[in-house]
Amino acid sequence: MNILSAKEMIAAYLREDVGTGDLSTDLVFGKELRGTGVFLAKDDGIVSGTEIIALTYSLYTNDVEVTLYKHDGDRVSKGENIAKVDGPVWVLLTCERVILNLMQLMSGIATATRKMVDKLDDPSIRIVDTRKTHPGLRMFEKYAVTCGGGFNHRFALYDGVMLKDNHIAFAGGIEKAVALVRSRLGHMVKVEVETETEEQVIQAVKAGADVIMFDNRTPEEIKHLQSLVPKHIITEASGGINIDSIADFKGCGVNCISVGGITNGVKPLDISFNSTEGIKP
Amino acid sequence: MNILSAKEMIAAYLREDVGTGDLSTDLVFGKELRGTGVFLAKDDGIVSGTEIIALTYSLYTNDVEVTLYKHDGDRVSKGENIAKVDGPVWVLLTCERVILNLMQLMSGIATATRKMVDKLDDPSIRIVDTRKTHPGLRMFEKYAVTCGGGFNHRFALYDGVMLKDNHIAFAGGIEKAVALVRSRLGHMVKVEVETETEEQVIQAVKAGADVIMFDNRTPEEIKHLQSLVPKHIITEASGGINIDSIADFKGCGVNCISVGGITNGVKPLDISFNSTEGIKP
Amino acid sequence: MNILSAKEMIAAYLREDVGTGDLSTDLVFGKELRGTGVFLAKDDGIVSGTEIIALTYSLYTNDVEVTLYKHDGDRVSKGENIAKVDGPVWVLLTCERVILNLMQLMSGIATATRKMVDKLDDPSIRIVDTRKTHPGLRMFEKYAVTCGGGFNHRFALYDGVMLKDNHIAFAGGIEKAVALVRSRLGHMVKVEVETETEEQVIQAVKAGADVIMFDNRTPEEIKHLQSLVPKHIITEASGGINIDSIADFKGCGVNCISVGGITNGVKPLDISFNSTEGIKP
Amino acid sequence: MNILSAKEMIAAYLREDVGTGDLSTDLVFGKELRGTGVFLAKDDGIVSGTEIIALTYSLYTNDVEVTLYKHDGDRVSKGENIAKVDGPVWVLLTCERVILNLMQLMSGIATATRKMVDKLDDPSIRIVDTRKTHPGLRMFEKYAVTCGGGFNHRFALYDGVMLKDNHIAFAGGIEKAVALVRSRLGHMVKVEVETETEEQVIQAVKAGADVIMFDNRTPEEIKHLQSLVPKHIITEASGGINIDSIADFKGCGVNCISVGGITNGVKPLDISFNSTEGIKP
Amino acid sequence: MNILSAKEMIAAYLREDVGTGDLSTDLVFGKELRGTGVFLAKDDGIVSGTEIIALTYSLYTNDVEVTLYKHDGDRVSKGENIAKVDGPVWVLLTCERVILNLMQLMSGIATATRKMVDKLDDPSIRIVDTRKTHPGLRMFEKYAVTCGGGFNHRFALYDGVMLKDNHIAFAGGIEKAVALVRSRLGHMVKVEVETETEEQVIQAVKAGADVIMFDNRTPEEIKHLQSLVPKHIITEASGGINIDSIADFKGCGVNCISVGGITNGVKPLDISFNSTEGIKP
Amino acid sequence: MNILSAKEMIAAYLREDVGTGDLSTDLVFGKELRGTGVFLAKDDGIVSGTEIIALTYSLYTNDVEVTLYKHDGDRVSKGENIAKVDGPVWVLLTCERVILNLMQLMSGIATATRKMVDKLDDPSIRIVDTRKTHPGLRMFEKYAVTCGGGFNHRFALYDGVMLKDNHIAFAGGIEKAVALVRSRLGHMVKVEVETETEEQVIQAVKAGADVIMFDNRTPEEIKHLQSLVPKHIITEASGGINIDSIADFKGCGVNCISVGGITNGVKPLDISFNSTEGIKP
Repeated sequence: MNILSAKEMIAAYLREDVGTGDLSTDLVFGKELRGTGVFLAKDDGIVSGTEIIALTYSLYTNDVEVTLYKHDGDRVSKGENIAKVDGPVWVLLTCERVILNLMQLMSGIATATRKMVDKLDDPSIRIVDTRKTHPGLRMFEKYAVTCGGGFNHRFALYDGVMLKDNHIAFAGGIEKAVALVRSRLGHMVKVEVETETEEQVIQAVKAGADVIMFDNRTPEEIKHLQSLVPKHIITEASGGINIDSIADFKGCGVNCISVGGITNGVKPLDISFNSTEGIKP
Repeated sequence: MNILSAKEMIAAYLREDVGTGDLSTDLVFGKELRGTGVFLAKDDGIVSGTEIIALTYSLYTNDVEVTLYKHDGDRVSKGENIAKVDGPVWVLLTCERVILNLMQLMSGIATATRKMVDKLDDPSIRIVDTRKTHPGLRMFEKYAVTCGGGFNHRFALYDGVMLKDNHIAFAGGIEKAVALVRSRLGHMVKVEVETETEEQVIQAVKAGADVIMFDNRTPEEIKHLQSLVPKHIITEASGGINIDSIADFKGCGVNCISVGGITNGVKPLDISFNSTEGIKP
Repeated sequence: MNILSAKEMIAAYLREDVGTGDLSTDLVFGKELRGTGVFLAKDDGIVSGTEIIALTYSLYTNDVEVTLYKHDGDRVSKGENIAKVDGPVWVLLTCERVILNLMQLMSGIATATRKMVDKLDDPSIRIVDTRKTHPGLRMFEKYAVTCGGGFNHRFALYDGVMLKDNHIAFAGGIEKAVALVRSRLGHMVKVEVETETEEQVIQAVKAGADVIMFDNRTPEEIKHLQSLVPKHIITEASGGINIDSIADFKGCGVNCISVGGITNGVKPLDISFNSTEGIKP
Repeated sequence: MNILSAKEMIAAYLREDVGTGDLSTDLVFGKELRGTGVFLAKDDGIVSGTEIIALTYSLYTNDVEVTLYKHDGDRVSKGENIAKVDGPVWVLLTCERVILNLMQLMSGIATATRKMVDKLDDPSIRIVDTRKTHPGLRMFEKYAVTCGGGFNHRFALYDGVMLKDNHIAFAGGIEKAVALVRSRLGHMVKVEVETETEEQVIQAVKAGADVIMFDNRTPEEIKHLQSLVPKHIITEASGGINIDSIADFKGCGVNCISVGGITNGVKPLDISFNSTEGIKP
Repeated sequence: MNILSAKEMIAAYLREDVGTGDLSTDLVFGKELRGTGVFLAKDDGIVSGTEIIALTYSLYTNDVEVTLYKHDGDRVSKGENIAKVDGPVWVLLTCERVILNLMQLMSGIATATRKMVDKLDDPSIRIVDTRKTHPGLRMFEKYAVTCGGGFNHRFALYDGVMLKDNHIAFAGGIEKAVALVRSRLGHMVKVEVETETEEQVIQAVKAGADVIMFDNRTPEEIKHLQSLVPKHIITEASGGINIDSIADFKGCGVNCISVGGITNGVKPLDISFNSTEGIKP
Repeated sequence: MNILSAKEMIAAYLREDVGTGDLSTDLVFGKELRGTGVFLAKDDGIVSGTEIIALTYSLYTNDVEVTLYKHDGDRVSKGENIAKVDGPVWVLLTCERVILNLMQLMSGIATATRKMVDKLDDPSIRIVDTRKTHPGLRMFEKYAVTCGGGFNHRFALYDGVMLKDNHIAFAGGIEKAVALVRSRLGHMVKVEVETETEEQVIQAVKAGADVIMFDNRTPEEIKHLQSLVPKHIITEASGGINIDSIADFKGCGVNCISVGGITNGVKPLDISFNSTEGIKP
């Protein structure tokens, strides 16, 4: 994660939620009052985004002390505190929702990823993410995937090539498509080919793809297809695999399984912000 | 929705997903090739965000023709087309994921809201949203709620006052808190008071709150509390109400029920982008 | 006021005035020289914008000490110091005009508002602002109004509904217009109706408007119209009321008087920045 | 004026006034309805900012037709139309206030400048502006000055040197200050010296200043000081000169008179936006 | 190249060069005058950046017609026209320098790259770029390299791993460093290892690097080192190789040679903008 | 240089090079590890941009200590250290290339300028820059010119008038063009006239130009033309003058020589960043 970019994005989130001012807080509390609060887990899960807490406050003041009890990737149980914060009450309250919305999302993604990894229970297969993320939030979401034990697929359209049916059709077949791309692509960028048939897998191998995706295949089919692919080519299973079906893929031999559902439509981890010692002048 | 802001946000989403260039598309397709595609619903639901399609393309070219078959708020069934688009292939492919990610999210929210409204089945009670939205996406998400038959709560911290336990404690009670705020607040802004006990409801009425929230109460309790509140004060039930419990609130007499779960952790509506007539030169 | 937004706006103002560099200061003074100066009122008035001083310097350095002698809302007399600052001379001089231009404007608005409030001399009637502000400066200007004892009307188009003649005409009358808007509007947003006749006032009451504006009416007319409006509906007088006519409205019974002239075309409060102890190495 | 920058600034003003959406307009009017309106002068004055009209609409749509009856610098009389516009009603209404606020300010400045020029009634003396402008609006305001027959002083700190008392004191006198600056300053930048005594004027001449400012001097004093300055050096009178005193400076021989009051605290020209042909479907 | 990002960057360049307005053009030419001009090569080279011409004008107007005689990657000879443009004179002149500065830089890079490729005269070896680019201009510069027949190395720190001496030292050797990175890195990202000795090359091969860099080695040394590396690992020669030494590397067997000097300190291709048909009213 | 603008630009450069994160550094080093490094000159030259070092780190942390051994404008010899830095290793490595790319460019420009000044060896003639700079980098580049003993020409189109052949042709001659511009131009802006013939020089003098440019003239021709120009008018030689021809202009009497080649196509000064005390935990 790039902290500089994170700060700029959080500033935009604060503009969204605070706008021209936090009316409730500004009209009740002065600038002087200090208070203490905790970020408390209200469900079990994996924590992600603890750095967000201090980054958000820092946009208003350097006067908040943040103590982390949990770090990114840690398991947290319902009722446990993630962090304690001490600072001006107006800052704590004005920033509350932005921090919660982002940390709950990130922790929800980390938790969903960890569940997927645990249910698959096959350390030889990586759970990887997709580009099915919330617009504008990808950096945070891809980071959260790694907190849950998952891995990142290409980040976006600029850092990896994925040849799908329409690229292949237009280029005149997998071999031609790969050759066309390779002839102009930088040597640091990998080329993945989406395949839907055994024949396409064979062509992708011949074409020298770096990564071959088996789209919408059963674990049994994957076992067979995997046998057609030499070791140095990475394979990826994809297409509608979710928490209910993931366990079936244990031992199928594929290298990665990409799962849209670890970033998309994920239940946020329930976290609340509570004043602990009350409001002390 | 402010179209100007929407365009600026979509530009940011394209920077996120396209960055320095769409390698796969740029290396395979020229700028000249035109094609046709459809946005196809792969599940039943309510459509929201159809304007996003044309807005996104417009950031690259004025040369895409968009035909909408469904409009915001319309029901769509699995297998139905939402829109047909015709334009340069590189634009269609480069913009595909940004449009899908945003329209799926918005349609998912509209669908979840509609389900909530339908299940409640009480036109005298509004389903309203909360500030539990994805950072940076609130304008789109609050709009999507209205497409699903829901209503918007305050947008953010700047356009409504919500007095919670800590404001009340610090001010020395509900009446003092409301009076303090009213003495400085503009006359166009409403004041909502969060209540946890019957006594607090009575105080909130006396304090002249515009809106009274019943926090974490059963439908039975709400019926009783509602009887303590004069007609001209709006009431809101809140706290953990979801698709499983919403029906219990039918007929409870409250004016609004706020539900975090219509914007938060919602399953996106499955929509895909398909080349229909293939890639035609 | 949102301090984060204020800082971002001041950064833009510094880009406007400093651009690629303050030639005079950079060529004469080194970075090392420290100095002391005061912000001195050259006229009587109400101070607003004292926070601007430290915020502006903070964009260049954390090395300026600011001592405030007056706070926002305080009366200041010609010849009194508002603040004393001590820091690097180049920072003090480079930031001088941006601070003065903003603080003079804000203090001018606070002063004009206070004069209006004092001349009206009726604590039962609020002086409220309008959207007639300088583009880009509304947050500062609306805040300044509150420093002068005035109150804020809706901030902008997004946080309040105002139904004017064209909305009413198109909807087919006041009752239809209010009903149409209410059927889709969030419950936290107030609806104001502009009226020009007694009949319209009666319709607006029937329509259940939250706020009724009496447009361009004499104090006598207002007294009468006010008698048609139940207590729980807020009333507002508007239209060309200024410092010369405001006193006539004393005791007319309206709740608010909106005055464009407290933000628009206001004489800035004359403030100068003076080196007090000279330039000390 | 740089049209590209103007468009970017107007976008910011629309963000300020429209934010997440124009509630009143969006809830009453559809996107299809077209209408016609005029910008009507409600007072006599000089028009400035007519380009703003089309630029503002263009940020939402290309579908508004603008017909200008008056151009920048033209005199307008109370009751005359400045422009007629025809387009989607929602665009006309949503943009109304931003256009009015900016065009009224600019026309107010043009009008005040023209009054100053007319009252001075000495074509050998230029009325020039200062840096006492509204933060963020300087480009528009300095342009408006030229529409009223005035001229621009340096734009900001980056395009002209102005040596004031503190620069001079620190450098050890006017000659040293000018020499120090000249030794490092680009040859395209002019150096102005502020003078408060006859002796300083003589020094400034000797120092080779490009422009000499007579600060806070009477017309009589200026006549004398002017005699000490060779023709090729430009002179400027400054300090509290306003519409009441400007006529006294006729014939004093100075080249420029700078007046803060033509940009600062100016009465906006009263302009209204009226639907002329009503709202036609 | 991402056209949307290109447009945003060019807008920033226009803000830099035009700022508050093009004084010379605005004061001489009206908005109505149209003219014609050509972009003329004043030296031999390879053209890059022709799209910049239309993109830049489009930020001011849609009223310029651009006819390209040369396209990106084409050779151009001294005296040949690259493009002809027809539009409002003020737009042509105001945009002139921004277009020239960018197109000259890009064409200079394309030309330098082409010279490097031609002098190497070994189609089995790619000339690749580095991160030694001008801050803020990398997208344009990396694109220009491909116009000259070169290839792109990783774009930045986010899309490729490069393990240098300090990473290796800290991790405890090449094998440990690669293993550490691989254990957390996404499967679409390649890992390059910088080597300075034969032993390090052997370790990098064992570690399973995707790319091995031979730092500062002679062509003879490279031939030997190349023999230690299996075919599927890409090799790169790096370190001070320039137009004078490049020919020595012909036939050395390496896959890529990275050259900072094709983006860094490159002589811009001399291009001028000439009014051809004069200024026609 | 405006430090606030510099910081904003460097933030953009970091977004370009770091993007969503520095993979190599993030995967190898923790946040805790501290280290020390030096910026080392690998060639002789003039240093410029030392302030960039601390400014860049400050965008990530306040925890880097920077000790400067050389200051802007100082000569540095191959092998000398320019600065020593001590801080978190991840910050030092992540910021390395952005600092180097900018400081090498600036120092390269300072060095080229100094060489030009030294070779000309005529203190009565200034070496001045042009608008031939890298888009987006002009503030840094013009500053670097002054570090090398050169001077700045106008910064951009907004702070100086330059009348070229097309302006003159359209206005109907030099005198008319100057008069036209002067009649509307602010008194703080200088007017330069480009001349190509002796007759034009005479006209420019008559027209009262502030600066006269002799375009593409030999030193001998300049000596003659100079004799036609009174002392108070500044003269500038321009057109293809470079390091090979500059010495010929010694003693030619012109005031300034503008050289595109001191900012354009300049060889960067070779600087490297080396860990000195290794990586210490």
